[in-house]
Amino acid sequence: MSEKADKRGGSNQMWGGRFAQGPSAIMREINASIPFDKALWKQDIAASKAHVAMLGACGIVSADDAATIAGGLDAVAAEYEADGVPEDWDLEDIHMTTESRLAQLIGPAAGRLHTARSRNDQVATDFRLWVRDAIDQADAGLEALQIALVERAGEHAGSIMPGFTHLQTAQPVTLGHHLMAYYEMIGRDRSRFADARVRMNRCPLGSAALAGTGFPIDRFMTADALGFAGPTANSLDSVSDRDFALDYLMAASQCALHLSRLAEEFIIWASQPFGFVTLPDSLSTGSSIMPQKKNPDAAELVRGHSGRIAGCLTSLMMTMKGLPLAYSKDMQDDKPPVFEAAGLLALSIAAMTGMVGETVFRTPRMRAAAELGFATATDLADWLVREADIPFREAHHITGAAVKLAEGQGVALDQLQLDALKEIDSRIDARVFTALSVEASVAARKSHGGTAPEQVRLRVADARAALGLGAVPGVSAAGQE
Amino acid sequence: MSEKADKRGGSNQMWGGRFAQGPSAIMREINASIPFDKALWKQDIAASKAHVAMLGACGIVSADDAATIAGGLDAVAAEYEADGVPEDWDLEDIHMTTESRLAQLIGPAAGRLHTARSRNDQVATDFRLWVRDAIDQADAGLEALQIALVERAGEHAGSIMPGFTHLQTAQPVTLGHHLMAYYEMIGRDRSRFADARVRMNRCPLGSAALAGTGFPIDRFMTADALGFAGPTANSLDSVSDRDFALDYLMAASQCALHLSRLAEEFIIWASQPFGFVTLPDSLSTGSSIMPQKKNPDAAELVRGHSGRIAGCLTSLMMTMKGLPLAYSKDMQDDKPPVFEAAGLLALSIAAMTGMVGETVFRTPRMRAAAELGFATATDLADWLVREADIPFREAHHITGAAVKLAEGQGVALDQLQLDALKEIDSRIDARVFTALSVEASVAARKSHGGTAPEQVRLRVADARAALGLGAVPGVSAAGQE
Amino acid sequence: MSEKADKRGGSNQMWGGRFAQGPSAIMREINASIPFDKALWKQDIAASKAHVAMLGACGIVSADDAATIAGGLDAVAAEYEADGVPEDWDLEDIHMTTESRLAQLIGPAAGRLHTARSRNDQVATDFRLWVRDAIDQADAGLEALQIALVERAGEHAGSIMPGFTHLQTAQPVTLGHHLMAYYEMIGRDRSRFADARVRMNRCPLGSAALAGTGFPIDRFMTADALGFAGPTANSLDSVSDRDFALDYLMAASQCALHLSRLAEEFIIWASQPFGFVTLPDSLSTGSSIMPQKKNPDAAELVRGHSGRIAGCLTSLMMTMKGLPLAYSKDMQDDKPPVFEAAGLLALSIAAMTGMVGETVFRTPRMRAAAELGFATATDLADWLVREADIPFREAHHITGAAVKLAEGQGVALDQLQLDALKEIDSRIDARVFTALSVEASVAARKSHGGTAPEQVRLRVADARAALGLGAVPGVSAAGQE
Amino acid sequence: MSEKADKRGGSNQMWGGRFAQGPSAIMREINASIPFDKALWKQDIAASKAHVAMLGACGIVSADDAATIAGGLDAVAAEYEADGVPEDWDLEDIHMTTESRLAQLIGPAAGRLHTARSRNDQVATDFRLWVRDAIDQADAGLEALQIALVERAGEHAGSIMPGFTHLQTAQPVTLGHHLMAYYEMIGRDRSRFADARVRMNRCPLGSAALAGTGFPIDRFMTADALGFAGPTANSLDSVSDRDFALDYLMAASQCALHLSRLAEEFIIWASQPFGFVTLPDSLSTGSSIMPQKKNPDAAELVRGHSGRIAGCLTSLMMTMKGLPLAYSKDMQDDKPPVFEAAGLLALSIAAMTGMVGETVFRTPRMRAAAELGFATATDLADWLVREADIPFREAHHITGAAVKLAEGQGVALDQLQLDALKEIDSRIDARVFTALSVEASVAARKSHGGTAPEQVRLRVADARAALGLGAVPGVSAAGQE
Repeated sequence: MSEKADKRGGSNQMWGGRFAQGPSAIMREINASIPFDKALWKQDIAASKAHVAMLGACGIVSADDAATIAGGLDAVAAEYEADGVPEDWDLEDIHMTTESRLAQLIGPAAGRLHTARSRNDQVATDFRLWVRDAIDQADAGLEALQIALVERAGEHAGSIMPGFTHLQTAQPVTLGHHLMAYYEMIGRDRSRFADARVRMNRCPLGSAALAGTGFPIDRFMTADALGFAGPTANSLDSVSDRDFALDYLMAASQCALHLSRLAEEFIIWASQPFGFVTLPDSLSTGSSIMPQKKNPDAAELVRGHSGRIAGCLTSLMMTMKGLPLAYSKDMQDDKPPVFEAAGLLALSIAAMTGMVGETVFRTPRMRAAAELGFATATDLADWLVREADIPFREAHHITGAAVKLAEGQGVALDQLQLDALKEIDSRIDARVFTALSVEASVAARKSHGGTAPEQVRLRVADARAALGLGAVPGVSAAGQE
Repeated sequence: MSEKADKRGGSNQMWGGRFAQGPSAIMREINASIPFDKALWKQDIAASKAHVAMLGACGIVSADDAATIAGGLDAVAAEYEADGVPEDWDLEDIHMTTESRLAQLIGPAAGRLHTARSRNDQVATDFRLWVRDAIDQADAGLEALQIALVERAGEHAGSIMPGFTHLQTAQPVTLGHHLMAYYEMIGRDRSRFADARVRMNRCPLGSAALAGTGFPIDRFMTADALGFAGPTANSLDSVSDRDFALDYLMAASQCALHLSRLAEEFIIWASQPFGFVTLPDSLSTGSSIMPQKKNPDAAELVRGHSGRIAGCLTSLMMTMKGLPLAYSKDMQDDKPPVFEAAGLLALSIAAMTGMVGETVFRTPRMRAAAELGFATATDLADWLVREADIPFREAHHITGAAVKLAEGQGVALDQLQLDALKEIDSRIDARVFTALSVEASVAARKSHGGTAPEQVRLRVADARAALGLGAVPGVSAAGQE
Repeated sequence: MSEKADKRGGSNQMWGGRFAQGPSAIMREINASIPFDKALWKQDIAASKAHVAMLGACGIVSADDAATIAGGLDAVAAEYEADGVPEDWDLEDIHMTTESRLAQLIGPAAGRLHTARSRNDQVATDFRLWVRDAIDQADAGLEALQIALVERAGEHAGSIMPGFTHLQTAQPVTLGHHLMAYYEMIGRDRSRFADARVRMNRCPLGSAALAGTGFPIDRFMTADALGFAGPTANSLDSVSDRDFALDYLMAASQCALHLSRLAEEFIIWASQPFGFVTLPDSLSTGSSIMPQKKNPDAAELVRGHSGRIAGCLTSLMMTMKGLPLAYSKDMQDDKPPVFEAAGLLALSIAAMTGMVGETVFRTPRMRAAAELGFATATDLADWLVREADIPFREAHHITGAAVKLAEGQGVALDQLQLDALKEIDSRIDARVFTALSVEASVAARKSHGGTAPEQVRLRVADARAALGLGAVPGVSAAGQE
Repeated sequence: MSEKADKRGGSNQMWGGRFAQGPSAIMREINASIPFDKALWKQDIAASKAHVAMLGACGIVSADDAATIAGGLDAVAAEYEADGVPEDWDLEDIHMTTESRLAQLIGPAAGRLHTARSRNDQVATDFRLWVRDAIDQADAGLEALQIALVERAGEHAGSIMPGFTHLQTAQPVTLGHHLMAYYEMIGRDRSRFADARVRMNRCPLGSAALAGTGFPIDRFMTADALGFAGPTANSLDSVSDRDFALDYLMAASQCALHLSRLAEEFIIWASQPFGFVTLPDSLSTGSSIMPQKKNPDAAELVRGHSGRIAGCLTSLMMTMKGLPLAYSKDMQDDKPPVFEAAGLLALSIAAMTGMVGETVFRTPRMRAAAELGFATATDLADWLVREADIPFREAHHITGAAVKLAEGQGVALDQLQLDALKEIDSRIDARVFTALSVEASVAARKSHGGTAPEQVRLRVADARAALGLGAVPGVSAAGQE
């Protein structure tokens, strides 16, 4: 039956045998996934080629038919590459769009391609392949971001800035140390994506509609051809499982949260009262009304995108909630959130990589800010513990009194008179002043993972080794110093 | 400076005066909102026309310029109508796209349009207008759904089906009563959209970037021209407020949840073991592999879409969290979730309206199912309270014993022998059997809002009156019977 | 049957008649809602009293029994008031806990209380009453916050600070104007809670399990006694509707988002580089290790709580998704998120009210910051439009050049030499300097809702009138000036 | 200073040195985490003991002091074990509660415990330990659930039921196959928890407030003592990282989704029209009004809990969004969602384990249902492909016609007359009837992971081997058959 006749009959060429009436306009619109699942075309072609090669190898279709179908699929792919994928709502999705075009190109043999499979395992396979690619792309982007972080951290291993807790000046830290905190976060993101990849790397193809098939297929062969570690173990699970999509969205959400934190910092640092950074013109925009503005739009969008990516995760979690086995059409709503999140995440990673790499850090302003806010008060307390053997809790109280005095006088801690300090606690002596500079403060914190420049350089060296970057002269990587 | 020269200089024509370098490729991509905010073009033209008319009336631009600009805007609109809105990422958004085209059409006078406004108040105005339209469309769709529900409820005011709690047969109800439950839900949805509409119907135009303007504008005039109840009261709030978008998403999410419940019911009712409904072919699809299948895809997609719509809400809530005043670029992420939710909601409403209107209810199967599961056990307990003056709690225990007996015998409650019942409690007599039919059960429940056919007909009459539908002969609406 | 015997039999006294075996340990634990729904005890007693009074008035129970039951309920309430509500998992929930205790106190007459109702309508009624109270409490708290905002705004109608967009200095605004932006937001929150209250104020009592009842009850009487506008219209809807809980959570989430924005501002303003505010000691904490710290903990917790409140909303939306009618046990998960959100919201409102009322605004630092960042660049552009009749877009470019020059020289805009300005555009003359001060800038923006002190005072006067506060001498409220 | 004096001064004993005024009532309430973080007491004691042992070993406190402190911590722990943890809001959290009690018990030496640490690294350590335990508990619960699934699957490897897609009868499957689908899902859940455990198993202790410490501590020693694989690598990251909590919530959410699907199936299967299962009395409840009811409450609560667990995830994602480094107080909102989710998940796993183990599967009803709905239509199509070499797509159309005919006659496919079938397509012959029984259908689907009983037995054997269960006689495990 020709496609035209089929449609005239009001029915669908792929499944319409028993239908008396075709879909209504609203049905065609709500049902059609081709507007978004055409993004899967490469995966769909690849999976179909692997499937038909296996059908041929197993003698389920003849070698001739297998070759004809494979050639036809290549021809369809070439058309898609050249002209894009046509959007015909009557053909519902990428699978039927491709099969329909294949039939036009090679005739009835096309009808043998769908032997021993269903759209249920087909879409599960295609979408897994797509997500696996998205994981690989995220990983590559995150590696580039790590490299940018490590490079800038190496530059600024000794640059002093205020470390904040509660956005209040807490203790001096080094900018390199601060940047390396994000290196760690991104490292966890990469490990999360890697875990997701391992977990999802099983091939559902051959699970058919839900129950497997009676044709003597070789699922190991198709799995292997598509780069999977092997076939899935349960056909019902295979067609109703969207864990791989959720794993992706969870890893993406977590990653986006990390980026949102870095973005928040750039936004705050770029504000006039902070003035810690000058953002590159290439990642900023202006205002349509205020000619002086240079806005950190890219960072703001990255921060905003974290909400949208987490929204995508919420969306799919809620959609999957309470669905009985096996495939339900609700699961067609799996793709838009994943596609959206992947696009937003890729942009976010690239934008932050550019930002980290090209931002001018105004280190003199950072250092000056570190000297405000009594940032070395802990060093005074620690000195009292170390040199005067005072229990920390008592030292903390003594220091609190010193801070109160300095605040009252409007001076920094190291500008207090020794006499005034002695009045607070007689065990304080002149040596204390050596502990109260911001340089002394950061240099002292050389515990493993601490902010001391020497620690930062060790961590940077470790990271460079892990990333396969060359060593920085004079610093060697070490797991433990 | 020509646009071309401007771009050659690497800078943006609208805000580039102080920029030495143009945006990077990644910046252009992450920053451009034109791919989605072009959906606002009608609102953008309308708001600009209202603005320039006011500028003219207030003498801020000359009458000639005002007329030229208004004519130019009409010309741009005509182009958009005919050819769509061009997507040039360098022009960022619909506002600059339109102004840029206006300048090409009418020359330097175009530069006067942006007097006394900013993109911040402009987008706030455009987007409000769009959301207001979306509310009106949702309301119209929901009214149609209510009409469908009321029509079918009227048909089935006396059709008996099992009422479920915990998806267990609980008590017999009427199908009309069941459908009218959704009439109530949809009524609340309409009231929620209406509340949102009132709350958002204030015009932000003239708030400029954030602080208002020094030009002697008349904000009441533009508000009036655009159908708003008046101008907003605080310019900082006006440009940083997205409550209207959240109100929309909240109303949409709530509505989608209602639709998801109705969809779930259709899906369960259409399953073979239930067999309560035959869905129309026009809202079903088949299978690519199982030729016998007729799947309730539309209902499943409606159920799935509820997850996506709630995900859109989560997205915008998270994006707005913790943003300081006034406008931040994160807020550009307000539109995609609203546009997506509005599209999904419109489809969902239309699909459920079709489903309600066209489904064949298999009332004999429904009635038969109502007779299973001892659905009239409560009627027995109530009879004991009424006729034998036994406290309800004790009557409940007696009935439990009767159910246990009937279950053991594999018969319905009204098929138990009177002797056997008397053995359980001697106060039971033959009159009890009149209470145990499903007809008697539903007829008895004529408390206000109860399932008795006479109650359902009253509620349907009320609803028909509220919807402006004609009365059904023989039944009159009444607030209280 | 005594409770003891009942339990020994392994069955539940309220519903156990047909059960051979009692619940397992895990069942008792997952099923018991008494650990949280005991919070409903006042509402449960009130609803039961209204119910039994109606049963008596309608002759469904005798006047004596009705009086006995009412007295017994008072006695139970007195015990709860004195000793708290006992948590016996075998009694599942507050409804059975109360009825069980009532039976111990007054004997078999207690068994008549449950006539013509079910736990399904009972919990729907109790929970609505609780949520209605929570709305009233939120409204009272928000009114107090509005008063604090208006008082401080009145004080600071003329205090100049930098207005930010993108957290970049944009234009000078007044602190009073900034605070009044939150007055507007909170006003919308109050209207949202008020809308929710109207929508939910219908009484489900008498809907019984799902189908209504055959007893001749008067639902209007109980609705009236409990302060509802009337009974609900559909019994199936009544027991399966949780819109009122979602409406509450939606209003709470929106409100929490507003508070999160204000909290973010206080946190940023309290940071050392900003230094715009000194937070009260009473709303700050210190550090266990850094003696100098004064942390804006309350504001951070308010910001954090917005995430949890939105999480509560997500929770209930997802729980309700796809539930068929009528009551399902999933709906027991409605209360914990509402209770949690209500507690967090009340704390958040109170904390922000304290913060707004007691914070010291460091207006000299604010004003100084407003003079940085070329905040009056727009005023220069506007001057060019007004005085030299230059189209705004061109004026914007000229001003961009001036900013670039000033930035290069490291001076403010009003410190540029006139000659230098004339070189950029010859139409500039000496009068321009009058437009470039921050005072001139804010004073000029007197459009409706603008930041000019005179505008702010009008808005404050409107707000004081709306809140029933006395007028501030010399300023009168006006809808439109 | 005594605690009492300290409080009289309005200030906090741990951090109050510089505060003139104590916290307000609202501050004490919003700030206090002791009501929930007392759940961490075991972890807090363990981490403090590891810390002080290290301080002693490194000579930072004397051996005597170290021993005194360790003994004191044991004494505090004994008190907590016996009497619970006291809730004094003035002591804020479990850390200060413990240190305060320690000081009362052992005097000033207690003040040395906080040397070289801060509450920031302390809580990060405690909470990680708690989450690690929660992971181990989840894994143990899930293993038990897998065992229950495998045992029942083994029993029912050959029990036939209808396999559903779209909740429409699709193809016959075996119950064992269906249960093994959940075995697969739970296996992925366990792998997800395991991945989270590896990723989080680094010790933050010694990171101090944010910058590390100047005391010569040995972080490897404390990490080792607490069972971590090593210390974290960056102190800023260590105190501001909550990935481990999010990883837990993500794994929990995913797991809860799986359980929600299984719960949905039990609920549907237990409904009267399905009647596939009889749930155990021990996991069901009755109704307060309908004596015949036996409700699947446990399953409904599991389904509902999935919403709450996902809400907990949303909550923490939103709370963490956009937080600058390092610690912010918002992060105190990390614990309630994790504690809530862990409690709900443990109950859900246990309830489903009970349900799987104790449910009576009504296999005759299942088998009868499998024979309805033309479930073997695919087998007819496959037969046409195999035996008549018809392309699948054409075979699908022929079968559709056969289904239409059978539906019209109201008979099953295998009850159609051969002549009638031949009229549809002449290539059909009598052998076809052997393919159309449900037994033949499932037996045929022996592709890897298919529903054939022999396949299911192989998968069960694999699973039993993986779980360390004994082999079932006559079946051997095999990675690949």
